[in-house]
Amino acid sequence: MNAADQPLDITLAMKETAEAVTRTMDRWLALPEGPEARVVEAMRHSALGGGKRLRPFLVMESARLFGVSDYAARQTAAAVEFLHCYSLIHDDLPAMDDAETRRGRPSCHVAFDEATAILAGDALLTLAFEILSDPDTHGNPAVRADLCRGLARASGHRGMVGGQMIDLLAEKEPNLDIHSVIRLQRMKTGALICFSAEAGAILGRAGEPARHALHSFGQELGLAFQIADDVLDHEGDAETVGKPVGRDDEAGKATFVTLLGLDGAKERAGMLADQAAVHLEHFGSSAARLAALARFVIDRKA
Amino acid sequence: MNAADQPLDITLAMKETAEAVTRTMDRWLALPEGPEARVVEAMRHSALGGGKRLRPFLVMESARLFGVSDYAARQTAAAVEFLHCYSLIHDDLPAMDDAETRRGRPSCHVAFDEATAILAGDALLTLAFEILSDPDTHGNPAVRADLCRGLARASGHRGMVGGQMIDLLAEKEPNLDIHSVIRLQRMKTGALICFSAEAGAILGRAGEPARHALHSFGQELGLAFQIADDVLDHEGDAETVGKPVGRDDEAGKATFVTLLGLDGAKERAGMLADQAAVHLEHFGSSAARLAALARFVIDRKA
Repeated sequence: MNAADQPLDITLAMKETAEAVTRTMDRWLALPEGPEARVVEAMRHSALGGGKRLRPFLVMESARLFGVSDYAARQTAAAVEFLHCYSLIHDDLPAMDDAETRRGRPSCHVAFDEATAILAGDALLTLAFEILSDPDTHGNPAVRADLCRGLARASGHRGMVGGQMIDLLAEKEPNLDIHSVIRLQRMKTGALICFSAEAGAILGRAGEPARHALHSFGQELGLAFQIADDVLDHEGDAETVGKPVGRDDEAGKATFVTLLGLDGAKERAGMLADQAAVHLEHFGSSAARLAALARFVIDRKA
Repeated sequence: MNAADQPLDITLAMKETAEAVTRTMDRWLALPEGPEARVVEAMRHSALGGGKRLRPFLVMESARLFGVSDYAARQTAAAVEFLHCYSLIHDDLPAMDDAETRRGRPSCHVAFDEATAILAGDALLTLAFEILSDPDTHGNPAVRADLCRGLARASGHRGMVGGQMIDLLAEKEPNLDIHSVIRLQRMKTGALICFSAEAGAILGRAGEPARHALHSFGQELGLAFQIADDVLDHEGDAETVGKPVGRDDEAGKATFVTLLGLDGAKERAGMLADQAAVHLEHFGSSAARLAALARFVIDRKA
């Protein structure tokens, strides 16, 4: 029976994927014997302690469209999530956003210390590339190299890191316009979400139209996700969200809510989610779970 | 004329390689238009501001043994040096070694700020994998994937990052024995030096014996290098060395000098350099520059 024929419970589907990918992540983080075990404990604290696993879900579901083996998809999903976790650890550092909680737990530098947190982030980033380049992940070296390249380009200074740099500078620049905020978010969170959606096409050696459709889906989804994040930061409560809320408002930072208003932001997120779903028409009913995800990211409460 | 037939001036050879690889590194660090330019400026500050370029020299010289194109070797050398530079930026952070100078200039967080330095390190690490996985670096995807995997394994929590974790913990543990200090250094600096020496064999699709010989050469060389570093830290002056000296002694840290004595450390470094050269016999006279490098690392004053 095809997944698309089943009654669709997106929350359950995400939970099952999260559990499967977390098991794969756990296997990559076996504790070594020596004193360096401390950095692996910190990696485990931040990587295995909850999270929606949105990016792994995108990898797994896009891979499913091309008949990619579950194993290859799970390894790739684990790599992407490790990379995401590294970015959270470093973003939370005192010199950056100085956040004490993450996913409802103490952030890495609070649970350990700053030096260990910096190293844990570095090691998770490196591990992502170790997994993607491992022959065990995919037998075709062109796939492995393409995965490494796609991840690196999404997450380096022209992508995620560049976006975080702009975000830090933006705190001193509250007059950012909507175009600047969109560019910032496309780099900071959008690029990795796009890569996650495209990863299945890379794994499946799919043609340019399919890859392009998934890339466009990822772009709209990523922006919708970020707008929903700003809405949650504005009206959510810290316990449900799992991290401090209202900090952007306090800092007087330009967000989608300050720029578009609360209703305007919600409306824009809804439009983007609809547009995201349109790109999936390329794949017919087999992309039903990805389409459901687009609604999920704007309706979520955490 | 074969390089081995020329009178050998290792300092000049290293300088020429350093200049060529630095030009390649410069091209990878073009300043973007947006505000994220700040992180690229920080990357440029730390990556283009001097350094012996020992690891690039190892890559270039090992590649030469297998007739690898200069272009592929230079790209790979740039990637390895970017990775090394990231590790220096993060090691110098206040939460880590808290070093204010590096290569005779202000360290990255002093010249910029902590947040920018963390991001610059992250971006250099990521860029290394972007370069190695780029089809422009090498036409064979198996070579690109193998380079990514080798670099990731050398520099992650089972390699360089794990070694730095042990090193930080060792400051509270001055009673490390020689075996623990050797293990620490093999991880912290040895693994990346080994990879640099092996990279030419990966680029040239060389067989296991050649790869093994270069790996063994890198192991001895890396340890000799580190012992020489401890000797310099003990008896060098900060201006020549380009970074603070005597800090290990002040901290009461176990080093090769405290464990073996000054003369013992020098003797051990010399033995290791000789052993390193023995592994090169596999390649005959074409490895003369690598053999000269083994002497250079223990005779250097900076």
